[in-house]
Amino acid sequence: MDSSQTDAGGIVAGGSAAKVVSAGAERELIVSVLVALDVPVTAAEMQADQLVEADLRGHPSHGLQRLRVIVGRIRNGVTIPVASPTHTWRTPAFMQVSGGQGLGPVVAWGALEEISARARETGIAIAAVSNSNHVGMLSPYVERLADRGQLGLAMTTSEALVHAYGGRRAVIGTNPIAIAVPAQPQPFVLDMATSEVSMGKILTHRHRKEPIPLGWAVDEDGRPTTDPDAAANGAISPFGGAKGYALGLAIELLVGALTESALGADVRGTLDATEICNKGDVFLCADPTALGLGDPSQAFTAYLQQIRESGDGTQPSVSVPGDRSRAVREQRMRTGVPIAAAVWADAEELLREIVEAAQ
Amino acid sequence: MDSSQTDAGGIVAGGSAAKVVSAGAERELIVSVLVALDVPVTAAEMQADQLVEADLRGHPSHGLQRLRVIVGRIRNGVTIPVASPTHTWRTPAFMQVSGGQGLGPVVAWGALEEISARARETGIAIAAVSNSNHVGMLSPYVERLADRGQLGLAMTTSEALVHAYGGRRAVIGTNPIAIAVPAQPQPFVLDMATSEVSMGKILTHRHRKEPIPLGWAVDEDGRPTTDPDAAANGAISPFGGAKGYALGLAIELLVGALTESALGADVRGTLDATEICNKGDVFLCADPTALGLGDPSQAFTAYLQQIRESGDGTQPSVSVPGDRSRAVREQRMRTGVPIAAAVWADAEELLREIVEAAQ
Repeated sequence: MDSSQTDAGGIVAGGSAAKVVSAGAERELIVSVLVALDVPVTAAEMQADQLVEADLRGHPSHGLQRLRVIVGRIRNGVTIPVASPTHTWRTPAFMQVSGGQGLGPVVAWGALEEISARARETGIAIAAVSNSNHVGMLSPYVERLADRGQLGLAMTTSEALVHAYGGRRAVIGTNPIAIAVPAQPQPFVLDMATSEVSMGKILTHRHRKEPIPLGWAVDEDGRPTTDPDAAANGAISPFGGAKGYALGLAIELLVGALTESALGADVRGTLDATEICNKGDVFLCADPTALGLGDPSQAFTAYLQQIRESGDGTQPSVSVPGDRSRAVREQRMRTGVPIAAAVWADAEELLREIVEAAQ
Repeated sequence: MDSSQTDAGGIVAGGSAAKVVSAGAERELIVSVLVALDVPVTAAEMQADQLVEADLRGHPSHGLQRLRVIVGRIRNGVTIPVASPTHTWRTPAFMQVSGGQGLGPVVAWGALEEISARARETGIAIAAVSNSNHVGMLSPYVERLADRGQLGLAMTTSEALVHAYGGRRAVIGTNPIAIAVPAQPQPFVLDMATSEVSMGKILTHRHRKEPIPLGWAVDEDGRPTTDPDAAANGAISPFGGAKGYALGLAIELLVGALTESALGADVRGTLDATEICNKGDVFLCADPTALGLGDPSQAFTAYLQQIRESGDGTQPSVSVPGDRSRAVREQRMRTGVPIAAAVWADAEELLREIVEAAQ
C-alpha cells in the first residue's frame, strides 16, 4: 500500500534509493513479521509503533532497519516477547523494573505509565529498568509525559562505541538523554545521543563510499579519521569535546548505579542478535501539580517563542528541540515515509522467511 | 601571609600578574570583609569557603573576584546575610527552599544537608531553591554527597548570556550542571557550564587585549567574532553546537518549572549588584542503600580506571571529570593559590573601605 513517490520531508533514508510508504503500511509489515514469530499482537504493535515513529521523525537508525536484529534476537532466545516484567517499588518514588528480557518498548511503556500515575501522588517517580532490550528512540516516552503536563527525563546506556576525550578506544555508550516539558502548541522535546553521530550514520557513509567529516570518529589507533571503514573499526567521538564526554560518562554512571547494569565495554545486546542485553534505562517523571507548583506551560510557551524569534528578529528562524522532528513527522504522515529500498526489501524477505519456516 | 612565588598549578589567574597566597590567607581576607559588613561569622565562612574553593580548583571566575559584587549586593540590600531560609517539604522527597535573599552558599548548603539526610530514608530527595543568590561552583556540593556514597546532581540558572543555536541574542543562562558519584580514591565530579566558555574568560581576553578563538561568542548582530569587546556586548555560544544548546535550554526549563524562577532574559541578580536575584537552583540526592541497591563505588572505581587508561594504553592519559581540578587543588593547598594581583588589591581595598566607613 505505497503512497506516491512524493518528497516526504526532504530527507532520504539509508544509503540507497528510497521507497515511500505510508506509516500504516510500515506498521502492518512489522506487526506481520513479529506476529508470524508468535509475538503477542499487543507487544508486536508496541514494537512496531516505536520503529515507525523513528522513521516518521527522520531517524532511520532507530527505525525499520533494526527489525532484522530484533527478529534475530527473538529467534536466538535472547529477547523473550512473552516476558512479564516485574515492578518493585523500593520506596514510594523509586521502582525497579526487571524486564524479563522482554521487548524494549513493551517494558519501557509499562514502566513509564506506572511512574506517570505514581507521580500524580508522589510528585516525583523514577523507574530503573534492567533485563530489557533496546527501547528505540527516547523522545516518544518523555513526550507523552509532557503532553499530560508532566516533566519527563529518560537516559539509557548502550554498547561502548564512544571514546573518552583524549582517549583512543570505545569505552562509553552513545548514552542518549531525553527531556520533555509541557508547552503550547507542542512540548519541548530534547532527545540526543552524547556521541557526535550515530554508528548508523557512519555505516551509511561506508555504504555510499563517502568520507565522513573530521571530528566524527577515530580509527582503531585513536587517530581522527575521515575513512568510514576505519571509523567503523574505531570509535565515535563524543559531541562537544570534553563536556560532551563528561556528560556521556555521567549518564553511564548514573544509569549504572540506579539499574545495577553493566558499564562500558561490558555492555552487550543493544546491537547484536546473540547476547542477553545488560544495559539499563532510567525514566523520571515529575508532576508539577502534585509537587504543589504552578503549571509551567504558559510561561514555557512564551519563553520558547522568544527563543524561536532570537534569530534575525523578524520570523521564527531558531529551532526549539522537538520542532524539526515534529514538522518532519507531520509531513510524512501526509505524504509517506521514505524507507531505504534495501531496508524495505529486507523486511519483506524476513516476512517470507518466517512464514515459510512456519509452514 | 603570602607563601613564596612558586608555580601554583601552572595556571595564572585573571588578566594581570598573579600574587600567590595561601588558601587560609584568602579565606581570612574574605571573612574579614564580610564580618566587617556585619555578616554572621558562620555565614561569612561558608561564603568564603566557596570562593576559596573556586580559586583552589583553578576557576577564578567563581573565586575572589566575585567578592566586590557580593559586597555591593549586601550594601544595596538585595542580599540579606542574616536571612533564615524556609524549608517546606511538599512531598516526602521534594523540598521547596525559599532563601530569603540569603547568601547563596549558606542557602545551598542548608538545602543540601537536608536532602542528604532525607535521602537516607526516602532514597531520593530534591531541593528546589528560589530567592537565593549565586551559589558559586557547583562541584563542592555534589562532591560532598558522593563522599558519603550518595549520587548528587545540581543545576542552576543564571542571567541570559548564551545564544540559541542559530540565534543572535542572549536568551539562555550559562546554566551549569554538576553530577558526582562515589569512586575510589576520589569521586567522579562533573561540573560544567553549558556555554562554550564563561563570560569571565572573555573579559580576561579583553583585559589582555587578546583575540578570542572563533566559536566562543557572537557580536551584537549575531556574527561569530574574535573581538572580545564585541563578544562582551554580544552573546556566548553554547558548547557543542545544537546539542549543547538543547541541554542548556532544558536546564533553564527544568529549573524554571521546579523552582518557579524566572526564565531567560528575565533572570536578574547573578552578576549585578543592584537587583534581587530571581534564578533557581535544583539539587538532587539519591542514596543507593536506601533505594535497595548495591554500593556502586567498587564497580565505578574499576570502570573509571579503564577510562583513564583508554589513551595510549600504557599510562593514565585520559582525565576523568574531577581529576584535574583535584590535582590543581592539592598542589595549591601545598604551594599557594595564584590570585590576580589586581583582584587581591581590590579585596584589600574593600576591607579598608568597609572598616573606615564603619568608624
